[in-house]
This record gives sequence, C-alpha cells and structure tokens, in this order.
Amino acid sequence: MEFLVIFTICLITIENVLCLPVEMPTASYLQQRAQIVNGEANMKVGGSIQLSAREQQVNRILMAAKTKEINSSRTVNGPLFLPSIHFFHGKGLIEKSEVFRIIKAMPKGGALHLHDCSMADITWLVKTVTYMDHCYMCTDQNNHIQFHFFQTPPSNPGCPWKLIATERQTAPNTEQFDQMLYNSMSLIVPDPVKTYPTIDVVWKEFLRILDVANGLINYAPVFGKYFYESLKEFHEDNVQYLETRALLPVVYNLDGSTIDNRTWVMETYKQNLDQFLKDYPDFTGARIIRSGLRFVKTSDVLQQVKESIAMLQQYPQVFAGYDLVGQEDPGTPLIDYLGALLYPSQQNIKLPYFFHAGETNWEGTPTDNNLIDAVLLNTSRIGHGYALTKHPETMRLVKNKGIAVEVNPISNQVLKLVDDLRNHPAASLIAQGFPVVISADDPSVWGARGLSYDFYMAFMGLAGADADLAMLKKLAINSLEYSALSPSEKMSAIYRWQYKWEQFIEKTLGNELHPLPFIGRY
Amino acid sequence: MEFLVIFTICLITIENVLCLPVEMPTASYLQQRAQIVNGEANMKVGGSIQLSAREQQVNRILMAAKTKEINSSRTVNGPLFLPSIHFFHGKGLIEKSEVFRIIKAMPKGGALHLHDCSMADITWLVKTVTYMDHCYMCTDQNNHIQFHFFQTPPSNPGCPWKLIATERQTAPNTEQFDQMLYNSMSLIVPDPVKTYPTIDVVWKEFLRILDVANGLINYAPVFGKYFYESLKEFHEDNVQYLETRALLPVVYNLDGSTIDNRTWVMETYKQNLDQFLKDYPDFTGARIIRSGLRFVKTSDVLQQVKESIAMLQQYPQVFAGYDLVGQEDPGTPLIDYLGALLYPSQQNIKLPYFFHAGETNWEGTPTDNNLIDAVLLNTSRIGHGYALTKHPETMRLVKNKGIAVEVNPISNQVLKLVDDLRNHPAASLIAQGFPVVISADDPSVWGARGLSYDFYMAFMGLAGADADLAMLKKLAINSLEYSALSPSEKMSAIYRWQYKWEQFIEKTLGNELHPLPFIGRY
Repeated sequence: MEFLVIFTICLITIENVLCLPVEMPTASYLQQRAQIVNGEANMKVGGSIQLSAREQQVNRILMAAKTKEINSSRTVNGPLFLPSIHFFHGKGLIEKSEVFRIIKAMPKGGALHLHDCSMADITWLVKTVTYMDHCYMCTDQNNHIQFHFFQTPPSNPGCPWKLIATERQTAPNTEQFDQMLYNSMSLIVPDPVKTYPTIDVVWKEFLRILDVANGLINYAPVFGKYFYESLKEFHEDNVQYLETRALLPVVYNLDGSTIDNRTWVMETYKQNLDQFLKDYPDFTGARIIRSGLRFVKTSDVLQQVKESIAMLQQYPQVFAGYDLVGQEDPGTPLIDYLGALLYPSQQNIKLPYFFHAGETNWEGTPTDNNLIDAVLLNTSRIGHGYALTKHPETMRLVKNKGIAVEVNPISNQVLKLVDDLRNHPAASLIAQGFPVVISADDPSVWGARGLSYDFYMAFMGLAGADADLAMLKKLAINSLEYSALSPSEKMSAIYRWQYKWEQFIEKTLGNELHPLPFIGRY
Repeated sequence: MEFLVIFTICLITIENVLCLPVEMPTASYLQQRAQIVNGEANMKVGGSIQLSAREQQVNRILMAAKTKEINSSRTVNGPLFLPSIHFFHGKGLIEKSEVFRIIKAMPKGGALHLHDCSMADITWLVKTVTYMDHCYMCTDQNNHIQFHFFQTPPSNPGCPWKLIATERQTAPNTEQFDQMLYNSMSLIVPDPVKTYPTIDVVWKEFLRILDVANGLINYAPVFGKYFYESLKEFHEDNVQYLETRALLPVVYNLDGSTIDNRTWVMETYKQNLDQFLKDYPDFTGARIIRSGLRFVKTSDVLQQVKESIAMLQQYPQVFAGYDLVGQEDPGTPLIDYLGALLYPSQQNIKLPYFFHAGETNWEGTPTDNNLIDAVLLNTSRIGHGYALTKHPETMRLVKNKGIAVEVNPISNQVLKLVDDLRNHPAASLIAQGFPVVISADDPSVWGARGLSYDFYMAFMGLAGADADLAMLKKLAINSLEYSALSPSEKMSAIYRWQYKWEQFIEKTLGNELHPLPFIGRY
C-alpha cells in the first residue's frame, strides 16, 4: 500500500495568501525568500521587539486603522496619502486619522530635538502673552508685525508702537485680530509651494517670524512661562521628557533694561522646570543644549564652549551640552570651528555635543561634510542627519558608535528638503535599524503641537505599511535611551515610561486606568 | 642651537583651504577625517577610476561648468537648481547648460532601460508618420485623438475617422495642427503638478497616450522604421548600444488585417537593426527584452516565458531575455507568477530576466517585495529598483551578485515618485558604489531625446557637487559591462567605446578628430 503525500507551502503576504504545491525548487525558493523577508523585518527599528499578548491586541487595532488608511489612498481617486502632501494641507486631515488618535494617546518618551523659541503653540503667545499689560505691536512698511513690552514705548517712525489692548478693542473683530497676530509668527500660508519656492526663501521667512515671536518670548516675565507652557504642551501630548537647543538669549525688562546673563536664563529654566516637575509628578525632566549660531567667529564659539563646560558643572540636572544652529548651507562648516570644538578633548574635559549636521540636499559640499566632523567630534546625537545616506563610511561609524539620528519629518518637509515623506532618507535608516529618534524641531511655526504629528508622519510615511506597534514602542524607548540622561536616570525614565505604556495598552483595550503610583524620578 | 619647527597641515575642501598648526590631536583628527573623506570618495561610482592627464584637463572644464551652475543655484535668489524642478519646466534651461553640452558630446555607452513605443521623439511620428498616405485621425468626446492607417476607414460614430492630410490642409495653421498631434501623444502640460496630482492619475494618462502613439507605430510599414529612428536618435546622442523592453505587439496592415506573429516582429527588429548597423558602422548593437504585462494570468506568463526561451535560441544576437512591465503598484506581484517564472530553472534552461522591481513609494507592500523576488529569480538587472534602499538584505544581495540597477531619473520624477532628484534613492546607491546604470525609460513622452537629459540629471542631481568625469566614465562603462552582451561582445563594445571616449576627450580639448578606423564589432 502506498500513499501519495502532497505537501503545500503557504506564504502569507500583506494582501494574499499564496499556497503552492511543494516541488523542491519552489520550496527552497520560498524558504530563501522567507529568510530575506524575516531578516529585513528583524533588522528594522522595532524588529527586535516582541509584543506581549495585550500589546498584540492593541497592535491589531492600530494596524487595522493603518491598513485602512493606506489602502484607501492606494485606490484610484482615493484620498491623497497624508505624508505625501504638504503638512499645511494635511494637518486637518491627520487630526481625523484613527492612527493619529492612537499615537496621541501613546506615551512617546522624549522629544530630543526642539528649539527654545518654537516649542509652544503660537496660540498661547497670542491668547495669553499679547493679552498681558504693556504689550505693544507695530506694523512696518512690509506689513510685518513686531512685538515688544514697554512701560512707555519709544518713538519708532518706521514702525510706530501701538498698545495691543487698544488695537484689539478698536478692531472690528477680535478673533480676526488675534488670527492676524498668530499669522505674524507662523509660516502657515495657503499655498506654501508658491510662497516658498526654495529652501533659502523659506528659511529667510522662518528666521524672520521666529524673531517676531522673540519680541514676546524674550520679555523677562514671559521667558520662563514660555518654557513652562512648552513642557505643558508636550506633557499633554504624552511626552515624558524634553531636550531643547537654547540660544540663552539676552532678555529685556519692562523699563527697557536688558539681562545679558546666561546664568539668569539657566536659573529661569531650572526654576520653571522644578515647578513643572512639582506640578506634574509624572513628568520625567528636561535638558538644555546650549546652541551657538553657526555664523559667528571661532573665538566666539570657543567662548561658548568654555561657558558650556562651566554650565555642565553648575547645572548637571538641566544642562546637557553644546550645538551650533541656524541654516546649515550658508553657515560656517564645523571644520572651520575645529580649533574651538576640539578644545574640551584637548583639555581632557568631557562636553557632550549634539550637532546639527547634514540638514542639506547639497551633496559633496562643506555643509554635507559636517556629518563627518560631527561624528569625529564624538557628537552624542546628530540633528537631522538628512544627508547621512549619501555617506556610507560615516553611516557605518554612526551605527557602530550608536549615535542617534534626530529625525524631524515635518520640519524637513516645511523647510523644503523633501515633499513626499516616503522619500525621506530616514526611511532607509529605519529599515536598516539605525538608532533613530523622532522629534518636532519647531512645531509652533507650522502649527503642530507636541510630538504626535511627527510620530504620525514617521509611522505612516517613513516606515512601511507593515511597520507596527513594535516600531512605535522602539522609537519611544530610543528617545529615552539616546537622551542626555545618565545611565541610572535612563533606567528610571524607561521604568516610568513603561508604566505609562502599560496604562496606554490597557486604556486602548477599554480597561480602566490604574491610578499612577509614586515612582521615584531619578 | 635649537630650531623651533612649526608644522602646518592644510585641508582642501571644495570651497576652502584650511591650514592649521599641527598639534597632535588636531593632526590626528585631520588624518582620520581625510581617511573618511577619501574612503567615501573611493567607494562611490567612479571612485576607482584614475583619469589620465588629458582626461583631467577635460575634467577641469567640466567641473568648472558644474561648480558654476551649482554655486549660482546656491546663492539666494539664484536660478532654481534644475534637478530639483519638474523636467517640463527645466528642459529648456538644461539645454542651455554647459554641463549638458559636454554630456551630449560624451559617448555614453548603452541605454539599457527603454520601451519599444516611447524611444523616438514624437516629432518624428508627427512630421514623418502622420504625413504618410492613408493616415487617419479621430477625436472622441473627451477631445482625445486616435490614429490609424486605413485604405477606407470604417464607420466609427463615437470618433469619426478623418484623413489627416485633409484636416491639416484645412487647418488655419499647420504648425499648430502638428503641435496638437504632438500633444496628443505627450505627457507635457503647462502645470504637471496640478494636472497629475497622484501616481495613479499620471500613469493612467501615460498609458493612454502610449496607446495613441501605438495607432501610428503598430502600422506594419511604420513599425520597423520607428525602431530604426529610435536607434538613430540614440546614436545621434552618442549612445553606442541599446536594449529595449518590447511587448512584441500585434501589428496591422492597411487592409485591416493583422499580424499576430511575434516572429514577424522579431524579424522586423532584426532587419532594421542589421540595416542600421550597415548604415552606422560605429554603432555597436541592440537587444530586445520580451516584456509581458503584469496583469495577465500565470498561464500567459508561462507561455511568454516558453516563447522567450525559443526566441533566445532563434535570435541570439538580438534577443536578450524576459521582463514584466506596466504600473507596478496595481500589478500582479512577481511572487504570484512564481510557477511560471521558475519554469526555466526547473527545466535547467537559462533565460535571463530583467525585472522591473520596486518602482514604488509604497514600502512594505507586495509591490515593494518584488525586489526580493527579482533578486531570487536571478534577475540580470533591476528596472528602477526605486525602493531598494528600504531593503537592506536585498541591497546586500544586489551588490554581492553584481546586479545592476537601471536608474531612470526623469521617468521617476515625471511619473510621480520624487520631485527633487537630490532625494532620489539612487543618490545613496551611487555613493555606495552600487552597479548603477542610467537610462531614459520613455523619453519621448516627456520630450526628452536620447540619454543625455537623464545623464545630466544623474550627474547634477543624483551625484554630489564633487562627482566628476570619473563618475560619468564609469556610468558609461557600467552600461556596457552590465548589458546583455556576451563577455567577448562586451570586450569589443568597451574597446569601441574607449576609442570614441578618446575622440571625445581630444575634441573637448579642441584637437582634431582622428577618422574612425574600422574596428570589428563582435
């Protein structure tokens, strides 16, 4: 008696289940294929994460929403895929996304790449700060607004100061008036492609509007409140920790005197952070990265580096290190500051660097090579690293040294490096399992808030259709693991985040929240 | 007596010469930096090429032009960088570029990724074919034109046939009339971003207009002439060799009868190629890659594979292998055709494959995974491979197996994968020294001609500011090395190309051309 045994082998792809009768070549083909598919799945960010049974339940909800959204955009005449269109046009639609809703609720860990004067929603500046006493505005001949607090405004013929309270009262419509103030500090326009044809045009406007907001932020009584508000908004967005690049600017008083004192600024940050941590015990902390402008002399950079060394000793719980900021292409390349930037290592002093590098599309230029210098100067992380995939040797070093790449998807789109975020080079870094963290750069100026919009873009646009909760979880863990926290602080931060994560899992599954017990911070 | 010796070390970047006094940390820093910079320079496509003294002279001319063009776009309010804007808007400006002029004159080797019905300038179809006897057109209710040759046109109520000769005569303006005919077969529109908002919209129109041209091309007396004209245009553009994907379509006669006979098509290709090689002894040759549509049943693919095996034996000097074409995203993934595509290897027969794969932005989908199947099916080259950088394991295999990636920059831009070509993933492949070849895909439909426009885009947009003549030379050599020619044919083709290359070098330096001696073809 003989049996005819027919084996079949089934291959499950995202859209099909394919079963084939086993003939050896086919079977061995499918085996090889599965090895590659699995190898790539394991390699990508989150590939090593094993989801628990409860997490898998949440993952099914998340992936059903993600797949639905992607598939609807893949049908002819379906809605545009949101990471492929300009954020100014997509923002309202993102807010309707089920994936976005889940991401908002998710504890996202740390936001590691932010800037001091573009973290908090401009609405807060308008609705709170411009309603404060003594707040003046003026409108120049280009119809550009400026803000300043004065006891008595000086004569300013090109742009005469007017008390906002009076202006608002006499305006035909208060909401429209406030919207005009909002617009004066925002990049948002109806047709960004036409308004900002090149990177230089958008950067010029970007720097101009930041300066408008600084008229409000750099008023001494506002300065600390702005930082507190920023912490509050990120906390509301389920972010547990924050690092911000800070220029430590000169601030001004009502009487026109100025405080050109970086210790005052650091003290103000520290006091507001301490207060915030008291008010929100579930928040983990924040760090300041002192940032010089990449347009100054080497001697100025050296001075800043020396000050930073002192600050690191003075504020070990608040100060993280040093960076250089500003539009990278026209800026001075890092190599030209070498004399200053090598100073700490030559003195055997440790000053962590967090260099912006490779935020450019101009391959083969000095800007582009900032990536090499950032790595050789032992940067802790790289800000943007947009050009990294064009530097194979530098990529190897970044991976081997475990240097995290701070990816800011919406920033790179609005500031004209890439239109369709599926073409963002971080897609390749994520696929290759690089230590990537997602951040928001300057969320206020493009109308984002917190970290969720950028996480949405990363999850939908930078990662594939098959990237799931494991990737989101890994991105959150990365953001604490690659933070400026000390090893023991990181352990505590991750432990506290893990607790929130479990709450998120249960809440998503419709279970009641446990009350948050006291967990020591660090 | 003592000497104080001060060493200095100088670092030459593209824009600066930086000299520093040698202190050991700085010196060792600069040494490490130079290692990385040189390592990356050597790794990229062309990095291993040593230019001769004469080539270096040409390189200086080329790089002066390139640097000037890039630097002018890097100044605020400078002209837009041409690879960053849509080809429809940039084409006229490219034609004024000195870099483009040099590239046009350069022998570029082979064009390895083309399609049968979109190789020759539409102007030729209009100015030659529509002027032939018996050529009819009709305009349907959507204002779409169709072409057909008839002895006597049949009644066609929805789109009544009219003799073009008469229409042209009665038109108020012949040039405008001919331009209208041109437009009916072209994707060119004044505002491509508005007209083609998504990849699906542009592909639908693309396939429609190809079909319009096929009304002229698939007329039996035109069919071979179109191929001859294509060879001529590429030859004029200093291309020495050509491979084209071909559907081997049904052609029609004047009396309405059809020739559903792929041997007739292959014979027609062969005869026209033979004639062309006789008329242009300096041309190296051409090959046909039989292409099925990725929308048919597996049994049809199997039939085509079997026919291809037969053709490879029948036309070893003309036939190269098999591929599947059509818009990849909605098409059947390769894995679903596995039964058919494994047939040759299961029969121990060698049929070279040249699969289109990964021409998509949809990561993590079956289309995206076509890359894996193409590699496992031992494809000789990959058509597009746009998604390759999101597949690290597949990348490794592609590099190890020496599978060339056929990059078609303008096609990927016009067909909506990427806007700014500096964001094209091939930039990363070029930086990593992958075997890349540059081709033109369907130049006719976007108004390109030959290979030079795509070479310009690759040189200016996919490669860095520092990529020079060595890269162009390597791209030309790659195009022969990774062709479907046999090893001995390749040797001969490269030898013949080398001769043209030397002529190009001398001519660029203003020296007289040597007459071309007879060199055996292969």
